[in-house]
Amino acid sequence: MSLAQLERQFRRIHHLQHVSAILQWDEAVMMPAAAGDARADAMATFGVVVHEHLTAPQLVDWLAAAEEEASTGALDAAQLANLREIRRAVKRASALPAELVEASARAQMRCEQAWRTQRAAGDWHGFAPLLSEVVARKREVASILAEALGVRAYDALLDEYEPFCTSADIDRVFAHLKAFLPRLIDEVIERQRGEPVVPLVGIFPRAAQHALGRTLMEAVGFDMQHGRLDVSHHPFCGGVATDVRVTTRYDESDFTSGLLGVLHETGHAKYEQGRPAQWSSQPVGEARGMSVHEGQSLLQEMQISRGREFLRFATRHIAEAFPDAARAAPQAFTADNLALLFTRVARSKIRVGADEVTYPCHILIRYDLERALIDGRIRVGDIPEAWDAGMQALLGISTKDDYRDGCMQDVHWSAGAFGYFPTYTLGAMTAAQLFAAAVRQNPAIPREIEHGTFASINEFLRENIWSKASLLTTPELLRAATGEPLDPKYFEAHLRRRYLER
Amino acid sequence: MSLAQLERQFRRIHHLQHVSAILQWDEAVMMPAAAGDARADAMATFGVVVHEHLTAPQLVDWLAAAEEEASTGALDAAQLANLREIRRAVKRASALPAELVEASARAQMRCEQAWRTQRAAGDWHGFAPLLSEVVARKREVASILAEALGVRAYDALLDEYEPFCTSADIDRVFAHLKAFLPRLIDEVIERQRGEPVVPLVGIFPRAAQHALGRTLMEAVGFDMQHGRLDVSHHPFCGGVATDVRVTTRYDESDFTSGLLGVLHETGHAKYEQGRPAQWSSQPVGEARGMSVHEGQSLLQEMQISRGREFLRFATRHIAEAFPDAARAAPQAFTADNLALLFTRVARSKIRVGADEVTYPCHILIRYDLERALIDGRIRVGDIPEAWDAGMQALLGISTKDDYRDGCMQDVHWSAGAFGYFPTYTLGAMTAAQLFAAAVRQNPAIPREIEHGTFASINEFLRENIWSKASLLTTPELLRAATGEPLDPKYFEAHLRRRYLER
Repeated sequence: MSLAQLERQFRRIHHLQHVSAILQWDEAVMMPAAAGDARADAMATFGVVVHEHLTAPQLVDWLAAAEEEASTGALDAAQLANLREIRRAVKRASALPAELVEASARAQMRCEQAWRTQRAAGDWHGFAPLLSEVVARKREVASILAEALGVRAYDALLDEYEPFCTSADIDRVFAHLKAFLPRLIDEVIERQRGEPVVPLVGIFPRAAQHALGRTLMEAVGFDMQHGRLDVSHHPFCGGVATDVRVTTRYDESDFTSGLLGVLHETGHAKYEQGRPAQWSSQPVGEARGMSVHEGQSLLQEMQISRGREFLRFATRHIAEAFPDAARAAPQAFTADNLALLFTRVARSKIRVGADEVTYPCHILIRYDLERALIDGRIRVGDIPEAWDAGMQALLGISTKDDYRDGCMQDVHWSAGAFGYFPTYTLGAMTAAQLFAAAVRQNPAIPREIEHGTFASINEFLRENIWSKASLLTTPELLRAATGEPLDPKYFEAHLRRRYLER
Repeated sequence: MSLAQLERQFRRIHHLQHVSAILQWDEAVMMPAAAGDARADAMATFGVVVHEHLTAPQLVDWLAAAEEEASTGALDAAQLANLREIRRAVKRASALPAELVEASARAQMRCEQAWRTQRAAGDWHGFAPLLSEVVARKREVASILAEALGVRAYDALLDEYEPFCTSADIDRVFAHLKAFLPRLIDEVIERQRGEPVVPLVGIFPRAAQHALGRTLMEAVGFDMQHGRLDVSHHPFCGGVATDVRVTTRYDESDFTSGLLGVLHETGHAKYEQGRPAQWSSQPVGEARGMSVHEGQSLLQEMQISRGREFLRFATRHIAEAFPDAARAAPQAFTADNLALLFTRVARSKIRVGADEVTYPCHILIRYDLERALIDGRIRVGDIPEAWDAGMQALLGISTKDDYRDGCMQDVHWSAGAFGYFPTYTLGAMTAAQLFAAAVRQNPAIPREIEHGTFASINEFLRENIWSKASLLTTPELLRAATGEPLDPKYFEAHLRRRYLER
């Protein structure tokens, strides 16, 4: 069988990617300060080895033979889906000349390293030339990929994170957001003005936060035999399906962001742990795309964990974890008060700290800007003014002359990740639509969550999302799970219900 | 330049080995319980990729061209040494058919996994057939390598751990040990019988042990910017030169073995951190061999850290780490008492717990047996009786019917590591000879150690061992550092001085 040859090669690639994933975790969590240069060299070589596997000359013949096999009807649905994913991976890897890949990687590494200090200093003028180099290389990449994939330049970049999606699709759903969000934000902030919220005050020891995080992540379904919880600068979910590495960070004066970080990443982790083992070494066994992945994390964090039902279950664990603080202010450690605290809405300059209501505004600004950059409609030098204009229009905040907390706040563009930002908000909409479908199918779910039982919601996700891996395209997957294509009305309804109707 | 092509290939191999080393550390220190199978698959593939790099068809031409280059005098000493090491690596890797490598690896993995439970149960009859399979494959490997390298079968295995050394060399130095050790052990035990030793009693919290370990490893010269200290089942030194991962384990009722484990591994670690960066990516930049490596760890642990001078410096830190225990029994926390405790001698069945005086007896038994197994003079079924006879002869202890703490106690043979055991005792002799040479060259060293100053001893090692990496052969290296070939008289003198003459 010819597909079998491809599958052997991709099993090998899967094993190499396993190694790479653990190394990336190690770099963020364990690696000592001065070991970075040698590690970067080793990983660069490793990247070349993986790329060689993805562009091996035999792949062309094997692919042709497998396509032939497919045309005779010899392959089943999973094999056809695997062939589709293999074709995508090979096409993307083969399209780009090695020198351009290397030049891009170098420009991005330089820009990202400089960003770490330049951002803190708000040094836009030092940063802009480095970012311009990244954008220039990325535009070359986009143009070559666009040719190879037969799509528009920006969409060729989007395809890396969100296949089967075009900027036209995004424009449609984002237009809906733009239409209702600014007014809704006004209404929510007005409504929350008089809300009686008791702040959480105290010292929240790291060890207690860590134990609480482990307790709650296991309660919602994380398998500790196949994973870990550790500390890194920013929370992430890494590792591999059999060994999922969740990280968070602890602030001893405020446990909420560390804990919600754990729960968010646990949403990603359950998707990793929940995909079927039978295809785990093949492209068809991988996660579908970033909007589905972010859909899992935001379903766990936003739909479930910031909600009153979950907090009726979790508050007892939280209060037990911090007995001194809970004794000092018992009225702060009630489910109702925590639910209010976890859903406060405020306009701010910073995306990563934003609540779920204002968050999409940050994405709308970035999406418009990065598309204009890739299309050549604006240049890097135009970013600060355009950023300020976007912030003024959507959030009524000026970032004029504030580069640090304005257009320099994110690492994504420095790292060459153009086409990534929209997946955050596609994910928020996916989460709302999936959760609504789950509750429609099984109205007992909110009550189960209140009792700390997550079997039904996890079963819905396992059956409709996790077990499907990359068997379907993203639109097919969402339609099979919810009966509809992605529709922002579920996200809007969720916001109105949680923030205006209680 | 043709050597340059080889060097490019070996830089790549070095980067792959970097990745592999961190992954091995992760498996021992971080990996969750159920992640082992998928990790083993990934690492097996990774091993194949490395092996392909070591046996790439172009290497034959590149090697021939580099040999030609060498013959014209175009290469300097370091390049010639690098070529020698590259030749060795390629020769070993190319000699063995891939199927035999795989069959060996499989037999070893099966045997090692079974050993973990069978050893605990003392199940020799379940274990013997698995070990027989390992030995059978290893004998095939040895015979093919022997042919390729032009040496005897056992020596071909020894070459992996201790190149430039033959069993005839080992026989010569081990004969010396056999001649004086049994009587010396009698004398030491007799002398220690009446010694007034105060035991260390108390609870020694893990966190305090960890902090003490870090303090002392940094004091003796470990660079924490390029390494870490963590916990694993058995202490080891792993990672890479720029990122050295030392591990130990903590027993809260006895801090000594955890602490001496840290200091032992720190001896290895300083050798890793101390080799010159300029050759770090090439075979000539690697550690010379196991006897030199073990020489570094035993110099740190045995020659330095269990000695009175070191303990005059370290006892204050130890007492400060465990204030409750030190307050309860101040007479236990004196340098003299700790020196007595750290040099107690007792005959026992177990190698890993043995003191430095009886330890070589354990090695002599294993060396004789493994050589006889590889030469086919005995079979696996003969091991228990031969083991018992060896223990009776050298240590006066019977292991009859005690498989668990007799011939099943070590994992080495299960894992296929034949030819490894002798390097422990070659290392002990190397350590004694190096330390004697250092003190001869600079008699102030013991006094410096007493004051917590390790600059002179580290400088001696850096100049004579660490900076030399694999530039010289092992005998050349030792002769350059000490003026003589390996001579067991230094080890004997060290034992007599420390154990009989004080």
